[in-house]
Amino acid sequence: VSALELGPGREFDAIRALVAQWGPLAVGVGGDCAVLDVPGRLVVSTDTSVEGVHFRRDWLTAAEVGYRATTAALSDLAAAAASPLGVLVAMTVPRDWQRDLSALAVGIGDAVRRAGTVIVGGDTTRGPVLSLTVTVLGSAERPLTRAGARPGDHVYVTGEFGGPAAAVRALAAGQQPSAPVLSHFVRPVARLAEAKWLVEHGAVAAIDISDGLTGDLAHVAAASGVQITIDINAVPAVGASGDVTVDDVAAGGEEYELAVVAPAGLDRAAFQAAFGIPLTDIGSVSAMGQQGSGVIVTNDGRHVDPSRSWDHFSE
Amino acid sequence: VSALELGPGREFDAIRALVAQWGPLAVGVGGDCAVLDVPGRLVVSTDTSVEGVHFRRDWLTAAEVGYRATTAALSDLAAAAASPLGVLVAMTVPRDWQRDLSALAVGIGDAVRRAGTVIVGGDTTRGPVLSLTVTVLGSAERPLTRAGARPGDHVYVTGEFGGPAAAVRALAAGQQPSAPVLSHFVRPVARLAEAKWLVEHGAVAAIDISDGLTGDLAHVAAASGVQITIDINAVPAVGASGDVTVDDVAAGGEEYELAVVAPAGLDRAAFQAAFGIPLTDIGSVSAMGQQGSGVIVTNDGRHVDPSRSWDHFSE
Repeated sequence: VSALELGPGREFDAIRALVAQWGPLAVGVGGDCAVLDVPGRLVVSTDTSVEGVHFRRDWLTAAEVGYRATTAALSDLAAAAASPLGVLVAMTVPRDWQRDLSALAVGIGDAVRRAGTVIVGGDTTRGPVLSLTVTVLGSAERPLTRAGARPGDHVYVTGEFGGPAAAVRALAAGQQPSAPVLSHFVRPVARLAEAKWLVEHGAVAAIDISDGLTGDLAHVAAASGVQITIDINAVPAVGASGDVTVDDVAAGGEEYELAVVAPAGLDRAAFQAAFGIPLTDIGSVSAMGQQGSGVIVTNDGRHVDPSRSWDHFSE
Repeated sequence: VSALELGPGREFDAIRALVAQWGPLAVGVGGDCAVLDVPGRLVVSTDTSVEGVHFRRDWLTAAEVGYRATTAALSDLAAAAASPLGVLVAMTVPRDWQRDLSALAVGIGDAVRRAGTVIVGGDTTRGPVLSLTVTVLGSAERPLTRAGARPGDHVYVTGEFGGPAAAVRALAAGQQPSAPVLSHFVRPVARLAEAKWLVEHGAVAAIDISDGLTGDLAHVAAASGVQITIDINAVPAVGASGDVTVDDVAAGGEEYELAVVAPAGLDRAAFQAAFGIPLTDIGSVSAMGQQGSGVIVTNDGRHVDPSRSWDHFSE
C-alpha cells in the first residue's frame, strides 16, 4: 500500500505531502498498520517532544526540531544495541506550524537516513502545540539493558558532555553559544553503530544519556542492584573554553551519548579510530552498599551531590 | 527490569504510580526499550488523541478518555486481524490533569485487559494539553490490509453504526444522548476476536471505521484499485428511535467497527452467535470504473454524496 492509495481528505493530503517529501525513506505509510519482519527479538521505545517543554521554537529551526525529536527516540535503540527496523511518527501540528511541516519532515528524514532506517507509519492531527511522538522499532539477538552491571566492571562514556546544557543556558540568557556547544545541542547523534561495537567488545549494560549522566547512571545502578562510582572530572567536556561547567557535564540532559558498563580494558584507541569520538573510562562498579544501589560522584576525590537531573515532569 | 528499579525523580515517581495502578498489566515498563518476541510478522500502528480535538473533557470521564484512546489504537490491529503483543502509552499530562492520572490509567488498563494484552512501555511528559499517543504491537502470519478486495466480493460490517456521531451531536447541543447511543460513544470495542473469525472465514481486506464508513471504504477502494457500492440503508443503525441519522451512519467517525471484504455467503448467524453483534452484507465490489476507484453509496437506490467524513486535520 502506498500513501498515494488513500481516499480524499485534507488529513490524507498532509500525509501525502509528507510521504512525497520523504521519498524512498517512507515505506508502506498510509495503511492502518505497518507490517515488518523482525529478525531476532523486537526492541521498541516511544519518545515525546513537546514545544515549550522539550524545545523552544525560537532556539531551533523546524528541521532541527524534527531531527532532534527523532534522534532522541533512536537513541533508545542505541542503548539496547539494537538495529533499527523503522520508525513511526505521530505529529500534532498547530495551525502556526503547518507551513513548517515540510521543514519538520526534512529534519525527521535526516535523522532517519543517518540511522540507516525508514519511516513505516505514523499519525497526523491538529492540536494547540507542536508535539512529536516518535516510536522506534529495532531488533537484536540479545538486547543490552540497564540490568547487566556487575561488581568489578568499569563505566565508559562515548563522546563529550555538557554541550546541550551549556547551549540552553546561553540561549536562555540571550547569548550565542560557541559553535561546538551549539552543535551538540542542535545536532545530537544516536550512537547506533557505536553501541554495536561496544556490545561486540564486551559491554554488559548500557543507557543513553537523556536525563543527565548521574541520574541515568542511577537507573543502571538500581536495575543492576549495584553501586557505581564515577570521577566527574574524567568525563570529557565539549570544547576547550570554560563554556561547559561540571554541573552541565554531570546533570545536563539530552546528550544522547551512551554510558556503558563493561569489563576494564576496552580498546579506546580503536573506538576513537572507528568513530572519531572518544570512549572514556569514568569509573567502576561495586557491590550494593549499605544504603542500597546508587551513584557516588567524586570531583577530584571530593564527593558531590549526584541527585540533580533533568526531570521533564517537574514544574 | 521492573519499574520500581528506576532511580529517583518526579517523572519516575509518576511512572511508578502508573505501574502500581496497572499491576500485572504492565510488563517491563521503565527501561529504555521494551523487548518482545514476535511470532510471525510484526504489525504496528500509532494513534494520537488530543484534548479539544479528539475529545472534550466535559463529555467524558478521565477513565473513558484513557479507554477510548487505547481502544482506537487497538482497533488498527483488529483491521489487520493481528494478535496484540503489547502497547506503549506516551502521555502528555498538563497540571490540571495530574490528579486524574490514576483514573486515566484505569481506563487505559481496562482497554488493554479487554484486548487480552499488556502495557510494555511508554513516556510521560508535561505539556499544555492532555495528549495520549498509543502505539500498538501485534503479530499475524498474514495480516489483512486494505488492498485485497476483488471484483465480485461482498462488503460486510460488524455491529451497529451512527452511535458516536449521534452522541456528539446531542452532547454539543447540551442534551443527554440515549443510553445505547452514549454507550457506543464512550465504550467502543476493538473487534480483535471478530477479525480473527472473519479472516478464518475468508475475509481478504479490512479497515476499522475511524474516519467514517464511506471515507474509510474509499481507502479500501483506492488501495485495492476497485469500485465499492454500498446500500447505506443496509447498514444497521444504533437503537430503535430516530436518534441516529443516515449521515451519522455514513460519515460518523470513531465507530471502531470493522468493514471487511469477503466472498459472498459469510455465515452471519454464526458470527452473531459467537460475538453477540450483527454481521451485515452492505454491498459489493466491482472493477475500477471510468473515474477510477471509489465508493458509490445508494440510499433506497438513489445515489448520495459519499464525500463527507471526519477529518481531524481540517479546521
